[in-house]
Amino acid sequence: MTRDPAELLAAAGEGSRAALARLITYVESGGPSQRATIELAYRAPSPYVVGLTGPPGAGKSTLTDRLIAEALGGELDEIGVLCVDPSSPFTGGAILGDRIRMQDHATDERVFIRSMATRGALGGLSLAVPDALRVLGAAGFPVALVETVGVGQMEVDVAGAADTTIVVTNPGWGDAMQANKAGLLEVADIFVINKADRPGVRETRRDLEQMLDLGTAKDPRPPILETVASTGEGVAELWSAILEHRRSIEGPRHAEHRRALASAALERVLGVLWRARLAEIAEGQAYEDQVSAIVDGRTDPYRAAETLLSSS
Amino acid sequence: MTRDPAELLAAAGEGSRAALARLITYVESGGPSQRATIELAYRAPSPYVVGLTGPPGAGKSTLTDRLIAEALGGELDEIGVLCVDPSSPFTGGAILGDRIRMQDHATDERVFIRSMATRGALGGLSLAVPDALRVLGAAGFPVALVETVGVGQMEVDVAGAADTTIVVTNPGWGDAMQANKAGLLEVADIFVINKADRPGVRETRRDLEQMLDLGTAKDPRPPILETVASTGEGVAELWSAILEHRRSIEGPRHAEHRRALASAALERVLGVLWRARLAEIAEGQAYEDQVSAIVDGRTDPYRAAETLLSSS
Repeated sequence: MTRDPAELLAAAGEGSRAALARLITYVESGGPSQRATIELAYRAPSPYVVGLTGPPGAGKSTLTDRLIAEALGGELDEIGVLCVDPSSPFTGGAILGDRIRMQDHATDERVFIRSMATRGALGGLSLAVPDALRVLGAAGFPVALVETVGVGQMEVDVAGAADTTIVVTNPGWGDAMQANKAGLLEVADIFVINKADRPGVRETRRDLEQMLDLGTAKDPRPPILETVASTGEGVAELWSAILEHRRSIEGPRHAEHRRALASAALERVLGVLWRARLAEIAEGQAYEDQVSAIVDGRTDPYRAAETLLSSS
Repeated sequence: MTRDPAELLAAAGEGSRAALARLITYVESGGPSQRATIELAYRAPSPYVVGLTGPPGAGKSTLTDRLIAEALGGELDEIGVLCVDPSSPFTGGAILGDRIRMQDHATDERVFIRSMATRGALGGLSLAVPDALRVLGAAGFPVALVETVGVGQMEVDVAGAADTTIVVTNPGWGDAMQANKAGLLEVADIFVINKADRPGVRETRRDLEQMLDLGTAKDPRPPILETVASTGEGVAELWSAILEHRRSIEGPRHAEHRRALASAALERVLGVLWRARLAEIAEGQAYEDQVSAIVDGRTDPYRAAETLLSSS
């Protein structure tokens, strides 16, 4: 297979999943291929991005699975799915299980599924997700799903790349939601109470409604839907709510959102260029000299950093 | 109280906890006070840093509590403690409980305890921890403890700032440890099986020994200790093991470690300066123009970023 991003993108547009996978590897991996791929991807329109987030065990993967089927049963011919795996050391098993479950669609030609790991706190791979979404768009996917486990900042980050963000909760999660109220309100366009065949749905709905009443939720007010992903119950209604939200944000508000996405992409690339510069600085003898001076107490990290930046 | 970092540091050296707290706020918060504080802090020797890490619920706070008492009962006159709280949205309660528990020492004049939050993925507050440790050193603390919940990268980051790193586990955690084997081996100078009055100690010890046999552990080989933090059992032995490790790393190896710390500090400050530059760029009209160009598909984020960097 060719290694040229333009040729790969042409092949991806004609349906080559291998070409598409390679392009996404490029946006994850840095270097000249990353750059060329991003340049191409941002010249094409973005796909409509639906984000799913929520804590581990909420049933996001099963729900994503059902949404894929629902979307393909309706107006869509194909769909791209990115799964963001936080590299949480103590939950490895569950995540792996999720991925295996979603392989229901692994042999479906109309579905492209890609797991993207996250790495470390700084410049992690999750930063590549918005770029990977643009690659999907450039390859002709009109709609993409992003599923991510909501841990700390990540849900906010990924929601920042989505047009419609679904926050998945479960019955009985009042306290857990309370702890992260601001974060949930900030990102949610639609709330889903999944596993709604379990006790506690009414209380969870009441807690969510209270959050929406008291906090500064998004406009339009996020609907609260109930699903049982394991049986598919409520999934058609969820897909309708997604399309409804999509209609509701057309116009000026959507233009503003697109601007925010572009700004985020620009900041990301500024970060990429910065890290390249930092790597260059860190390789030089001047860097080693400044480290020695810090160790000896002859300078401090501020003065050392300024010396390095001004002389490079 | 004065706002001048040099005066605050003098006051902190004479025992003013309020002055010390303000200096740590400075290193967390950015701006000229951060800079002045870091400049001062790095001119003084570093404290000896003991790091405790491990997953939520391992009993780190109780163990830290006991170690404080043990240290103060022995050779130390005072001790500084930093608690790094990951902003994990779904475990708020437990963390709060930990902090309250550690308030056993809140009224002890010889103990300075400070919680430091972490924020977001990029440039989070955990980056300020090494600088805060240097502030403790400059204020005259010979030893500092850092306690952090091991989630993903953070344990590695904080261990990078510690001279002796203790990884706290519990009986029955074989599988969980297996998932993060490389990370644990990379950071641990001492393994502790806390809650050792519970079943499964022997299996956990066996799993740890196997990890140490098969992986590339630190040198000297990390001892495996058993504690029951709730009763204090094994804590004296743990403190002895810390002192033993401290003796073992004196000499050239320690110089290398200090160099790594200085290099990390330098990288952090380079990041601070970069973020300042980024903020400056993002405020200009040129930035808005480039965002518009990306939205319209007239440019891509790479070209836009290079334009901004070359003209600023």
